[in-house]
Amino acid sequence: MPILIISKSKLFSNLHILKNTINTQIAAVIKDNAYGHGIEEISNLLVEFGINSVFVKNNFEANKVNNKFQHITILYPNCYENIPNNVYLTISSLDCIQKIPINTGIELKVNTGMNRNGIEPSDLIMALNLIKTQNLRLIGVFTHNAYGDCYGNSHCDDFISQQNLFKQIKNQTLDFVAKHNLPKPRFHSLSSSGAIKVGNVDDDLVRIGIAMYGYLCTNHDIVNELQPIAEIWTSKISSRFLKKGDKVGYEGKYIIQEDCIVSSYDIGYGDGLFRLNENHHKLTTKEGYIILPRMSMDSTSIISNEEEICIMNDASIFANIFGTIPYEILCKISPYMKKVIKE
Amino acid sequence: MPILIISKSKLFSNLHILKNTINTQIAAVIKDNAYGHGIEEISNLLVEFGINSVFVKNNFEANKVNNKFQHITILYPNCYENIPNNVYLTISSLDCIQKIPINTGIELKVNTGMNRNGIEPSDLIMALNLIKTQNLRLIGVFTHNAYGDCYGNSHCDDFISQQNLFKQIKNQTLDFVAKHNLPKPRFHSLSSSGAIKVGNVDDDLVRIGIAMYGYLCTNHDIVNELQPIAEIWTSKISSRFLKKGDKVGYEGKYIIQEDCIVSSYDIGYGDGLFRLNENHHKLTTKEGYIILPRMSMDSTSIISNEEEICIMNDASIFANIFGTIPYEILCKISPYMKKVIKE
Repeated sequence: MPILIISKSKLFSNLHILKNTINTQIAAVIKDNAYGHGIEEISNLLVEFGINSVFVKNNFEANKVNNKFQHITILYPNCYENIPNNVYLTISSLDCIQKIPINTGIELKVNTGMNRNGIEPSDLIMALNLIKTQNLRLIGVFTHNAYGDCYGNSHCDDFISQQNLFKQIKNQTLDFVAKHNLPKPRFHSLSSSGAIKVGNVDDDLVRIGIAMYGYLCTNHDIVNELQPIAEIWTSKISSRFLKKGDKVGYEGKYIIQEDCIVSSYDIGYGDGLFRLNENHHKLTTKEGYIILPRMSMDSTSIISNEEEICIMNDASIFANIFGTIPYEILCKISPYMKKVIKE
Repeated sequence: MPILIISKSKLFSNLHILKNTINTQIAAVIKDNAYGHGIEEISNLLVEFGINSVFVKNNFEANKVNNKFQHITILYPNCYENIPNNVYLTISSLDCIQKIPINTGIELKVNTGMNRNGIEPSDLIMALNLIKTQNLRLIGVFTHNAYGDCYGNSHCDDFISQQNLFKQIKNQTLDFVAKHNLPKPRFHSLSSSGAIKVGNVDDDLVRIGIAMYGYLCTNHDIVNELQPIAEIWTSKISSRFLKKGDKVGYEGKYIIQEDCIVSSYDIGYGDGLFRLNENHHKLTTKEGYIILPRMSMDSTSIISNEEEICIMNDASIFANIFGTIPYEILCKISPYMKKVIKE
């Protein structure tokens, strides 16, 4: 049975590094099943570490962890009813404000240049008035800087212009709440890479996602200190001795180069791995065993006779081979994969 | 909230076509969450259609449907204990036979040339003796022809040689059970495409997987009659008017070509879609709206102002863009996506 082994010490080490690098509160992004790592398992570890603010995908995820954290923000709410006090709904459009029951906690998302989600800055005061009229609890105002991952001189202007726009939004919001005698909301605009980029963060919190899991797509020094927290292990189904010229798998696409033992292991692209085929670069396991294309939905042939094998210990390697980013490799890991926490 | 809409009439139409084309019993492959369609939802429809034999991935899936079917084969068992009478374990190696409790139903998988899973043909009699000694119920003997999907003259010899080898395995098994006065097991070697390729199937059943869901990677006439049974719909999060030259998404990778309304929708690569980026061919929705790279984990920007949009009605389109097969596109759909059955 394939198993996702999560290293508590690596997670804690990553969190310590991030805490020491970032000069404000860190909140954990545990959406999409904690980027594939298991939302409940990761949440238990985060509680132990002392994290009290998290961001989840939808109501389903919030329900899974709502007894664990002091502050839970649903980034993409799909239901507005029966929201506990410690759970906040993200507002991304003016339309939805009037649908939310009074006293519900909300965080207002403002578009500062990603041009994806959130209200327009020009609608800020209208939104704040609607929120006040509707008697919603304004917990936070936030944005998402689209250029946090750009490094060197690339898109510096875009990054800074989004940060400056958010500063204006903050000031307008602070004026509004002061004028109406409302509590001051929290402000946040940056994810892991953005926060590390600016160094001195002027927000109330930073949303830490991918860096916590051990990955970061920037060139900051701490990239080398962060460690992927998960490994995927798989068990042997059956083994056979094959001769040079023998074919393996669908359409016999892999041809054995020299006599060897080939085993099939109980993991495939149906478990969330990306399907290795004959057009991809060679992929090996952690120990260097060659993974043979084509991967099947539920099994993978490897030149190995090991009973258990670590097929993935670094999502970046898969990401490079499949022309994508570690985020996608991780969040596609089947939620049904068994999780094991090791110290 | 993204929704997977399953068309009952299309599923039934596909099953009727396959039943009329294939001259033996059809069994349904519902492993990997019914290729991403929802194992429970698809099972209920299969029961209504009259299917009584299914193939699942592991014990977890068998437990989900074991009250629905007469015959359930676990292709990759991860537990040998407490197996109900209507659930059968696949045996893929000699080693595991002795670990299985007496009276358990099993299907013996034999390698005929895929060189992936199953025992070697030379070990057949030894395996049958072990199964007999261990008092296991031999329900079936099967293989998986690696060349079912090859069409035209490609790999014809390989396909036929696997079929011939399986014929020998059948005969040896029939001799063995006759000699020991054991019940005759069922024999099967072909999936959808293999069965359609041979026309006159000499097995007791055919394992129908991808064709049932509306896809087939061969050039047989019925390919054009099969219809994808599922569509993925997604809802608008927020909309904005953008001008020519405006940038959208991470690193501003999409640049607006002419003034338009762009909306974000509540689906992303975290829901199982493949992550569209600037290096891929243009992708549109069912209605022709342009999907903008880069897709985010939980949202996707589309040049549209529709409240609801069908982002995928044919997994082949995604498969082509991402250099993979419909199987992978389908089985990566998040099991958490809501399912709706329509007539």
